[in-house]
Amino acid sequence: MQTPKNIAVVGSGLVGSLLAIYLVKRGHKVDVYDRRSDIRKIEFSGRSINLAMSVRGWHALDEVGVGDAIRKIAIPLYKRAIHTLDKPMYFQPYGKENEAIYSISRGALNKMMIDLAEEAGATFIFDQKIWDVDLAEATLYAGSADKSERKAYKYDLVFGADGAFSRVRHKMQRRSMFNYSQEFLETGYKELTIPANEDGSHKLDKNSFHIWPRGEFMFIAMPNTDGSFTCTLFMPYKGINSFEALDTEEKVHAFFEEHFPVILEDIPNLVKDFFNHPTSSLVTIKCFPWTYWDKVALIGDAAHAIVPFYGQGMNVGFEDITELDGLIDQFGDDWEAIFNAYETSRKPNADAIAELSFRNFMEMSTKTADASFILRKKIEAKFFNEYPDQWVPLYSRVTFSRKPYAEALEQGDKQRAIMDEVMKMPNIHDNWESEAVTQRILELLSA
Amino acid sequence: MQTPKNIAVVGSGLVGSLLAIYLVKRGHKVDVYDRRSDIRKIEFSGRSINLAMSVRGWHALDEVGVGDAIRKIAIPLYKRAIHTLDKPMYFQPYGKENEAIYSISRGALNKMMIDLAEEAGATFIFDQKIWDVDLAEATLYAGSADKSERKAYKYDLVFGADGAFSRVRHKMQRRSMFNYSQEFLETGYKELTIPANEDGSHKLDKNSFHIWPRGEFMFIAMPNTDGSFTCTLFMPYKGINSFEALDTEEKVHAFFEEHFPVILEDIPNLVKDFFNHPTSSLVTIKCFPWTYWDKVALIGDAAHAIVPFYGQGMNVGFEDITELDGLIDQFGDDWEAIFNAYETSRKPNADAIAELSFRNFMEMSTKTADASFILRKKIEAKFFNEYPDQWVPLYSRVTFSRKPYAEALEQGDKQRAIMDEVMKMPNIHDNWESEAVTQRILELLSA
Repeated sequence: MQTPKNIAVVGSGLVGSLLAIYLVKRGHKVDVYDRRSDIRKIEFSGRSINLAMSVRGWHALDEVGVGDAIRKIAIPLYKRAIHTLDKPMYFQPYGKENEAIYSISRGALNKMMIDLAEEAGATFIFDQKIWDVDLAEATLYAGSADKSERKAYKYDLVFGADGAFSRVRHKMQRRSMFNYSQEFLETGYKELTIPANEDGSHKLDKNSFHIWPRGEFMFIAMPNTDGSFTCTLFMPYKGINSFEALDTEEKVHAFFEEHFPVILEDIPNLVKDFFNHPTSSLVTIKCFPWTYWDKVALIGDAAHAIVPFYGQGMNVGFEDITELDGLIDQFGDDWEAIFNAYETSRKPNADAIAELSFRNFMEMSTKTADASFILRKKIEAKFFNEYPDQWVPLYSRVTFSRKPYAEALEQGDKQRAIMDEVMKMPNIHDNWESEAVTQRILELLSA
Repeated sequence: MQTPKNIAVVGSGLVGSLLAIYLVKRGHKVDVYDRRSDIRKIEFSGRSINLAMSVRGWHALDEVGVGDAIRKIAIPLYKRAIHTLDKPMYFQPYGKENEAIYSISRGALNKMMIDLAEEAGATFIFDQKIWDVDLAEATLYAGSADKSERKAYKYDLVFGADGAFSRVRHKMQRRSMFNYSQEFLETGYKELTIPANEDGSHKLDKNSFHIWPRGEFMFIAMPNTDGSFTCTLFMPYKGINSFEALDTEEKVHAFFEEHFPVILEDIPNLVKDFFNHPTSSLVTIKCFPWTYWDKVALIGDAAHAIVPFYGQGMNVGFEDITELDGLIDQFGDDWEAIFNAYETSRKPNADAIAELSFRNFMEMSTKTADASFILRKKIEAKFFNEYPDQWVPLYSRVTFSRKPYAEALEQGDKQRAIMDEVMKMPNIHDNWESEAVTQRILELLSA
């Protein structure tokens, strides 16, 4: 057992709540601050793509024994269901049999996590804006929305789990030698809902991640336990098919009629919802360092916000916690050593999943319709079928293993270089199923 | 002539002053704000590597007829003077005969530029901190150091020429969709001075850029008109030879005795100066967009701070001004069109010189001692000698031409790829002077 500390966690989101459970179980006194109201008492109205829990996420939950409670609100998705305009819907399995990602509503999960953290012994303090942080003193200046009412709260340690636009990070950012970047995509997103059938059943196959790829824009749907689907339209802000261009109800109706006729049938209030729901932005945030002495550490999105196209945002945040927990085992009460090792070992992996997530966006938005890209995927799939041990697909490495993200990125780059060579083979478009292609891949793998 | 506007320029540094001259000459009313006092009335104490004015900078000055005034305080440097420990000092010419970069003291230049801008008709307002900016209204909230005394000043246009830590940019940064990055090197720098001889002459060749490369750290010296040299020690913050490690007078003395014995003789107060002068950091800052409607534009370091290893920081800022001026000719009173074209055309070039400057740092700190790097440079130099039209060196393209930086970067990459191939030739270390090498380069150039 470590020496008990007074610890503040800023942010009662998924990472903040799970971190609180881990720390309380180690005997620390934990207060969790959030500037928002208790989401268990209000109608959840957050903008959110549904979450996809995969192996890293489940591992972090199971380590503190809360995985099974959460499995009850999770729906396994074994495959992608691809909806194109010119052929019938078809499936692409995610991995081997029984390998699945799990669709969970962010709101439902967050409420449950807060309950679990309170049961474990953490204290939640809502409606508390963090006005300032004294990093060297691990002191929060918090209070209601009125600045004059703020008070100082001194702790031994402060964790900033306060998301992409973290206040704690903002304070660290003002120091010299703080590396920081924020990069927005020119694509935004809007959340919509496909309601359940009248009998409560799902309108689409409920064990699939549904995707309607359309080149520069796409529509996705993930199931909820109540029979509905949480859907997201990703689309550029500007251009021909864009949020800017769809500025009247008629245009929105015509847009869906042309590109997503089925969805138009499935969402009764689609046009109204389109204008009532906000358009949200997609940002990648990187920074370093993540810690300040033995006093303050950033975790989750506060340290590394990524775009959602690999479904890893929550998983990487949860893995921050298991990594930190392993370092606590290793270094005991030496929080400076813990923090140093934590930021040093996590940073390359956070950068790697940021890069992979961004690449997946590029792939989806520019390459899915590209003939040579599709051929590449076919050749890879064929080879993987024949030599499953020699070609672990990048997606499986990221989603169904706990191997470091940085390693996945490296292996993925190696596979890409091999495929670049394969694609240079003469008449590859005609001969891609030939034995020569298989031999060439084997040769390049052993080079 | 454009419709005259009321224009505020925030920042009375080199770019702010020159921009004021350009705008006044077009008939605008220009107020230049600075939070510092008038540097003409105080002892200049800024941290600053001496400036290296090259072709882009001179062009911007000559276009408004102030180049000749400034040539009087500039010293041409035709060559690098390389000081190693194991052989006599030797020269490397920068370009062809008469091609030079020009050493100018930042303080002296800035004073002269403010004088010239005042003569042209600009108004300078010193000791004015910008507390806030209303971007949509082009309104500055400025005043003395006491926040309660701030007042609103409304303009038609505002230019943020307020440097790497720009207040104007800070305001733009809070908006969504503002891409931003700041990245610090783990190397810092410290300024020192080699005084003139008693008769006022220079202690070292005055028409050279002096450099003492030592791998991870280096010392440079640039001449001033008064016989002194402004010197800079670049060194990592941490590690064996680092600012952190040199924490006593004895250690500093021993460090210079070992690595820079000549400098120890030339700087009488070296050890005292070392501790009296601050250690400054090196940062690359990128952002986008640079403009807000037809109201606000960033320029110079405020839009793109770069590390100093290509000597282009001031030159790229001055080129922003000539580019903007050309767009004013093109678009007249349509400031939205001017600003759009300005940020779109300048951004890739600013990114390119940032990249080139960073690479030069990497080269200097890690590669200068590398045998195969030196061989590369020898082969390139030999080929350039034989075929001067087919191999414009990257340095010349950046320094002695006004071709876009992005083009220089692209050509440089192409040359690098060719040299990668050349270095793969068998026994290249022995055969580098052979005709086969020349033929191979010609072949690769025409591929």
